[in-house]
Amino acid sequence: MQQRNATAAVIGAGDYIGSAIAKKFAAEGYTVFAGRRTADKLQTLKSEIEAAGGKCETRGLDARKEDEITTFLNEADKAAPLEVCIFNVGANVNFPVLETTERVFRKVWEMAAYGGFLTGREAARLMLAHGNGSLLFTGATASVRGGIGYAAFASAKFALRGMAQSFARELGPKNIHVAHLVIDAGVDTAFVRNRIKARGGDAALAGLAEDQLMDPKSIADAYWYLHTQSRDAWTHELDVRPFMEKW
Amino acid sequence: MQQRNATAAVIGAGDYIGSAIAKKFAAEGYTVFAGRRTADKLQTLKSEIEAAGGKCETRGLDARKEDEITTFLNEADKAAPLEVCIFNVGANVNFPVLETTERVFRKVWEMAAYGGFLTGREAARLMLAHGNGSLLFTGATASVRGGIGYAAFASAKFALRGMAQSFARELGPKNIHVAHLVIDAGVDTAFVRNRIKARGGDAALAGLAEDQLMDPKSIADAYWYLHTQSRDAWTHELDVRPFMEKW
Amino acid sequence: MQQRNATAAVIGAGDYIGSAIAKKFAAEGYTVFAGRRTADKLQTLKSEIEAAGGKCETRGLDARKEDEITTFLNEADKAAPLEVCIFNVGANVNFPVLETTERVFRKVWEMAAYGGFLTGREAARLMLAHGNGSLLFTGATASVRGGIGYAAFASAKFALRGMAQSFARELGPKNIHVAHLVIDAGVDTAFVRNRIKARGGDAALAGLAEDQLMDPKSIADAYWYLHTQSRDAWTHELDVRPFMEKW
Amino acid sequence: MQQRNATAAVIGAGDYIGSAIAKKFAAEGYTVFAGRRTADKLQTLKSEIEAAGGKCETRGLDARKEDEITTFLNEADKAAPLEVCIFNVGANVNFPVLETTERVFRKVWEMAAYGGFLTGREAARLMLAHGNGSLLFTGATASVRGGIGYAAFASAKFALRGMAQSFARELGPKNIHVAHLVIDAGVDTAFVRNRIKARGGDAALAGLAEDQLMDPKSIADAYWYLHTQSRDAWTHELDVRPFMEKW
Repeated sequence: MQQRNATAAVIGAGDYIGSAIAKKFAAEGYTVFAGRRTADKLQTLKSEIEAAGGKCETRGLDARKEDEITTFLNEADKAAPLEVCIFNVGANVNFPVLETTERVFRKVWEMAAYGGFLTGREAARLMLAHGNGSLLFTGATASVRGGIGYAAFASAKFALRGMAQSFARELGPKNIHVAHLVIDAGVDTAFVRNRIKARGGDAALAGLAEDQLMDPKSIADAYWYLHTQSRDAWTHELDVRPFMEKW
Repeated sequence: MQQRNATAAVIGAGDYIGSAIAKKFAAEGYTVFAGRRTADKLQTLKSEIEAAGGKCETRGLDARKEDEITTFLNEADKAAPLEVCIFNVGANVNFPVLETTERVFRKVWEMAAYGGFLTGREAARLMLAHGNGSLLFTGATASVRGGIGYAAFASAKFALRGMAQSFARELGPKNIHVAHLVIDAGVDTAFVRNRIKARGGDAALAGLAEDQLMDPKSIADAYWYLHTQSRDAWTHELDVRPFMEKW
Repeated sequence: MQQRNATAAVIGAGDYIGSAIAKKFAAEGYTVFAGRRTADKLQTLKSEIEAAGGKCETRGLDARKEDEITTFLNEADKAAPLEVCIFNVGANVNFPVLETTERVFRKVWEMAAYGGFLTGREAARLMLAHGNGSLLFTGATASVRGGIGYAAFASAKFALRGMAQSFARELGPKNIHVAHLVIDAGVDTAFVRNRIKARGGDAALAGLAEDQLMDPKSIADAYWYLHTQSRDAWTHELDVRPFMEKW
Repeated sequence: MQQRNATAAVIGAGDYIGSAIAKKFAAEGYTVFAGRRTADKLQTLKSEIEAAGGKCETRGLDARKEDEITTFLNEADKAAPLEVCIFNVGANVNFPVLETTERVFRKVWEMAAYGGFLTGREAARLMLAHGNGSLLFTGATASVRGGIGYAAFASAKFALRGMAQSFARELGPKNIHVAHLVIDAGVDTAFVRNRIKARGGDAALAGLAEDQLMDPKSIADAYWYLHTQSRDAWTHELDVRPFMEKW
């Protein structure tokens, strides 16, 4: 691997999609700055990236705090010019309307939309100074469809999507590629496997077809693709789902 | 006019759309509860409704305060069963990405989306107890398109729209009609007329064609239509724009 | 009823939605011109309208024939100025991809899209001469979602919708109101009731809740509403579905 | 280059996008079957591919003829298993509603939608026999927006898009990747350059920024990306436009 003089920041570097993205960009020679709520949980990711010869810095980070986001991205940019920034904070909850507390509604928005705004704006500030960069936002089915029980989550994901469009239209002509991914199915995570088991038992788990769940690595490839598109043919929105998925 | 034993609540009873809606429902016999930030500004509305033989209660109200919304709607429901609730709080601002402060981003969301959630949930609670009702949310072009400069506003309007969809899918089968209006053009307000004048001078104002701007009364008719639809053919989303509008 | 000096043309005046629309406009004083493939099947409609004091002319009509559409609309316009034209030809079929013959694919498009174009263009020609009019197109779920088995039907309904948008953007400023309705559920027809019975037996039919299926009259009200909107606040697209519908 | 035992068929192998796609797949080792109306016009493409060490068969082909499409694809599949099929027939015309003849409306649909259906169905038949394949359809801005003057073109492009969705939902679980690209801007072609010159003179041409127009090669990369996606994370719809484009 040849190390580049460039940084990729991942806000919301969780165990699955976020980690896979971090590894992908590290494997491509980027210095990765990985942030999530609990810094301790990033040790495995850092070790794996370094074992593979890559570079990774980790930070505990609350994406809802302007100063933390600003500090994190400034540090990333000092390590090497910030060239790509991925916002991947999730906040998937499901409550009936009457049981959605104002606290839940606010918190989900703060994590999934407000944090995305802070991240996007501060990354844009740094990228505009360099004259280029990619800003990639993780969306979900709930970004384009407000389903039952998702008043809080869909509202926050819609919010992130609308914001991403405004960013794209303003920043595209300034050479910042802003894209929004619609992850329209279950990713292969412990959470999803447990849910499948809870609903259908061991048989349901055993009966999963090959490639029925999304491998986080496959999703990471989509982020890499978007980042490496030629600027005369940029994509703003990309949906991904497994071949078997009903949609 | 025959007075009904039913209340229509308008959150965001501004001088134009909000007032027109209030007058329409009052003219149809509803007791209107009109709320906006400054109670004083509701005096004219109240006087006009009463002069026409209608009933109107007014309240100063911060739609971002859970307890104020709850109190307002409970009082409305005590006056007579809450049958229709319109959320019409606006927060149209335009800033470049880098000049959008976290305060603006948060405040616009709190007004346009969070307030809509509080309103919708509390109105739903009351309506579910009665077994029926209409929940109508005011959207805008920015509800479906994130344009340049609208990172905050589009994000908030998208958020309201996603939430309205979740509400509709859950509450529809419980006999609550949830609808979202996309007001896709300039309404005939002092603000819009001043903007036209600022851009094109007196000639631009004088050159406005008949019906080129939307009369708030015409918009109010759309809210009334949605409220009075038969429940076997409910509309969830309705766009309105003047015949001359480019879109 | 007061008779107006105006004609409403219904292309695709079938037993349910089309007939309900025809009756509604007749009841509002319009001379109705009703066309469908088999003229004989229009006798009941004509009798009912006339029994109610309305005026109705009927014609056998193949909506895929330019000369037949032109003749039909010209005759309608001669009876009294053509003020509203509804295109309501259905062609709902479901075939797996490999079993969709070129003949089916073509025919469904000819009925649902090409016929709509011929109707819309010729009605527009007459309305532009008068300086006003409404052009209303019937869409379906398949207008906005290409589901399994609907390669032919969804393609045709998408086609009609795209065309309606182009018509609307060009003709709106010329005072022709072009709108597209998305009928997003089963209408209460013999066909739908038979399908419910075939799937779930008599119990399923008996178990239908009140207002679970759409009454064609309720849908006709939506067409009437669109036609009577003030031109400073026109709607282009309107979805309708019963309150209980999953969507 | 290593030659694969696989064929890529391009229906609508025009001078720009279609040729670029053909070259890309040839460069990746696919035997390319290139079809367009006039076989003679394919000689340059064939020569270029062969000069680069690739394999290319060319055919004159009317995409509106079921037997021609069937023969073409069967021949392609006999040369080596058909693994990817691209439908790229264009038919961009602009006429006011009243000047859109039934012949134009029909022909544009036959080329852009009906031909796509024939291509897709016959390719699917062959791919299902092999158990895998990619079906890629070229869309445009008019696939998602019916603009003024595009009653025929938008209708046809909407039709293709609706069809592609139905194909995707049925064939995805059968391991056929169906995707639709929204080419949302001008490609760098002689036609587009002439139009720019006609509107703005030599200065407009000279003033074109780098990457302001899309290089067909960049678009071809998007087709390649879609084809090579892992099936646990397939994209159905991909938009592409240059970084400077207003949208």
